[in-house]
Amino acid sequence: MIVLGKEEIKKRINLNEMMDEIEHAYTVFGEGNYFMPPRQSVEDSNKTMMYMPCYTKEVIGTKILSIFPENAKINLPLIDGVVLLNDVETGQPIAVLDGQTITAYRTGAVGGVGIRHFAKKDAKSVGIIGAGTQGYYQALFAACARELERVNLFNRRGKDMEEYKKNLKEEILEKTGREVEICEYKEVEELVKKSDILCTTTTATAPVLPNDAEQLRGKCIISIGSYTPEMREIPDVVCSLVDKVYIELPYAMEETGDLAQPLAEGILKEENVVLMSDYLKGERRAIEKGETTYFKSVGMALFDICVSHKILNTKEN
Amino acid sequence: MIVLGKEEIKKRINLNEMMDEIEHAYTVFGEGNYFMPPRQSVEDSNKTMMYMPCYTKEVIGTKILSIFPENAKINLPLIDGVVLLNDVETGQPIAVLDGQTITAYRTGAVGGVGIRHFAKKDAKSVGIIGAGTQGYYQALFAACARELERVNLFNRRGKDMEEYKKNLKEEILEKTGREVEICEYKEVEELVKKSDILCTTTTATAPVLPNDAEQLRGKCIISIGSYTPEMREIPDVVCSLVDKVYIELPYAMEETGDLAQPLAEGILKEENVVLMSDYLKGERRAIEKGETTYFKSVGMALFDICVSHKILNTKEN
Repeated sequence: MIVLGKEEIKKRINLNEMMDEIEHAYTVFGEGNYFMPPRQSVEDSNKTMMYMPCYTKEVIGTKILSIFPENAKINLPLIDGVVLLNDVETGQPIAVLDGQTITAYRTGAVGGVGIRHFAKKDAKSVGIIGAGTQGYYQALFAACARELERVNLFNRRGKDMEEYKKNLKEEILEKTGREVEICEYKEVEELVKKSDILCTTTTATAPVLPNDAEQLRGKCIISIGSYTPEMREIPDVVCSLVDKVYIELPYAMEETGDLAQPLAEGILKEENVVLMSDYLKGERRAIEKGETTYFKSVGMALFDICVSHKILNTKEN
Repeated sequence: MIVLGKEEIKKRINLNEMMDEIEHAYTVFGEGNYFMPPRQSVEDSNKTMMYMPCYTKEVIGTKILSIFPENAKINLPLIDGVVLLNDVETGQPIAVLDGQTITAYRTGAVGGVGIRHFAKKDAKSVGIIGAGTQGYYQALFAACARELERVNLFNRRGKDMEEYKKNLKEEILEKTGREVEICEYKEVEELVKKSDILCTTTTATAPVLPNDAEQLRGKCIISIGSYTPEMREIPDVVCSLVDKVYIELPYAMEETGDLAQPLAEGILKEENVVLMSDYLKGERRAIEKGETTYFKSVGMALFDICVSHKILNTKEN
């Protein structure tokens, strides 16, 4: 049994390969070569364990999460867990990987693939709204997907960001070879103005971007945070600015308020929602100057399993 | 994250402590201080993954099994797996233990506790019907629970038992300090005659012991094998020989043919079925000379979790 903790995983991570693996997962998804039953969760005294199995032709994996809201009081992450991999031919357990690290990098890679396809080629800056763990990894992959010069951060809580910024700057340099400037903004409007790409990684229940066509026109918007029908990060105006909304799986239209709410209100039409697996099969085109694009992710166990399997089969750098 | 494979687990096993831990699990069960939701299983192309969570006040554990019937063709175990332990306060994953080894020792310990309470004090021999993996561990714990001089084996398949017998003899000596004689029998009747304790560990669908009161009177019968309503190891006559049938949990009365079939036929009455947790709370008494006793086990995740937690907190011997 192989065990890969945070440091071992980090040493094996190649950002471009991770994004390639996410694109591979979209292919697997599009071809239907997987089995991903509904996730199972059990709960006792507000302590939830969640089991997310996924079979591919290459591996069987289970993402197992603990969700303990009381951890906030003791300054520990609410969500922790592992990814267990089993041999697809024999069922034998082969590896356990740190679930937090896998989730962080794979979610970053999912956003990175969105940027690969929907940001203009000469994008120079990303703006992160919600500069927590997810925001960190969005910035990291953004800096790999485009030749960024600047990462702009916004965080509502007035926490000290010095260590966060130092780590992010160092990991971007280490993994992409780019020296980026990292700036903090006190106003979202200011950050939006200075950013070609916008990544939202909050748990907000009301839009975190201005509902203003002028401010958002020409941006590549990557929405990561909302994963329940009540959560919302993206304002209505985005639906009128974009031609298509790109998502991962049909169920997302029920799962996230960023899709379910505008669909219910008729602001967004289902025929304008496109699955990434369909997009990647079709003809790709460069993003035009001034074009607004929007990719919304809710995640799925298939990503975790493909990425974990890839990392297991990667040597340390 | 701590990983304990077969050898690490074996080094930490103290047979008496394992049986004490099973008795502790019965106490936890009796007091209702646990949460054990129904097991979840998913299946694709005859490849089943099974998730068996259990919360106690001390730990959260999940037994995760792969059940791959096709493994028989490549001479691998059909069932493999792990036990994952999470911190009960924070949810953090703390350990992964080899599931085959845990299952083997805990099932042996469950049978051993049956022998502790229901075999006469001066029992000198155990007869194992179905000398496979489970039979091995029944014999091991039997030799700890009583001062055995002889282990009698019966196996329908004519496989070479030399290595099995050598390993069993050595592990009994190592773990209990007893030098036992190990004998093979070609006829079950002969083995029954020569054994004070009988352990059945087969997947039979018809009784593997003779349906004859004279042959079974005075024996301590430990039935381990049957875990579906169609499976059956114990003949009807046993129900008329014993005062009570001891079991682990009420659901066993539906799950195993050894209980469900005689209950349906009225040969066994529900009021004569006693939970071990109730028995252990009450007054204990010595087994009388000539008394027949019967304990039937189907197992439960609570055992695996308690035993795994105990092993995690035990230093290597």
